[in-house]
Amino acid sequence: MIGRLNHVAIAVPDLEAATATYRDTLGARVSQPQPEPDHGVTVVFIELPNTKIELLEALGDNSPINAFLERNPSGGIHHVCYEVEDILAARDRLVETGARVLGTGEPKIGAHGKPVLFLHPKDFNGTLVELEQV
Amino acid sequence: MIGRLNHVAIAVPDLEAATATYRDTLGARVSQPQPEPDHGVTVVFIELPNTKIELLEALGDNSPINAFLERNPSGGIHHVCYEVEDILAARDRLVETGARVLGTGEPKIGAHGKPVLFLHPKDFNGTLVELEQV
Repeated sequence: MIGRLNHVAIAVPDLEAATATYRDTLGARVSQPQPEPDHGVTVVFIELPNTKIELLEALGDNSPINAFLERNPSGGIHHVCYEVEDILAARDRLVETGARVLGTGEPKIGAHGKPVLFLHPKDFNGTLVELEQV
Repeated sequence: MIGRLNHVAIAVPDLEAATATYRDTLGARVSQPQPEPDHGVTVVFIELPNTKIELLEALGDNSPINAFLERNPSGGIHHVCYEVEDILAARDRLVETGARVLGTGEPKIGAHGKPVLFLHPKDFNGTLVELEQV
């Protein structure tokens, strides 16, 4: 069912400093910061040859990463995102096996403009999993 | 400097259960478990089209993931591994910029039989980073 690893998301307290670390210390190709007010984050893409890292900074008081950053003030790996071809079929299969889909269970349009779902970390070894239909 | 994302490592308390989750719930291709006594872990590779996830279970009393699993009893994302062409050049560049290399600073032979180094999470937004020479 799952296909490519679309991205690894790392929540950071200071996007400018984190971007500089990836660009200058690790020598990676980095994008301009992209505010996503609908998703409560500003994102920088670290473009690797086979996938990408997304650095997330909180945007606004209701950012979905605020609680994570309170628990992890220096930042940390927030989630992994796997691609699926058919998100509704994926959702139905997951629910059938007893895995919990976060929120209403209906896909939302994610930060890349595509349907996404998040799965409960407790059902996936403490790992928050995003599925994105591509 | 950094190239491909070689793998994302997820520490898990129960490798058999975690493997079943990836195989049966997420429908991914999984390897047989591979004990790595020299590295204190047993590994299952989740083979995605563009990279891999490594599920790590502690092997032995001195496993390097024991402390992590004590803090995160249901498991969690342990580290990300980036490929580099020349690990000594990478190390020297990192040290020059003030980043801390864990251990002696000399590369060790990692679980894939290639030279690796680990970088201090505090210098990389709370993320443990492994570099592997490929």
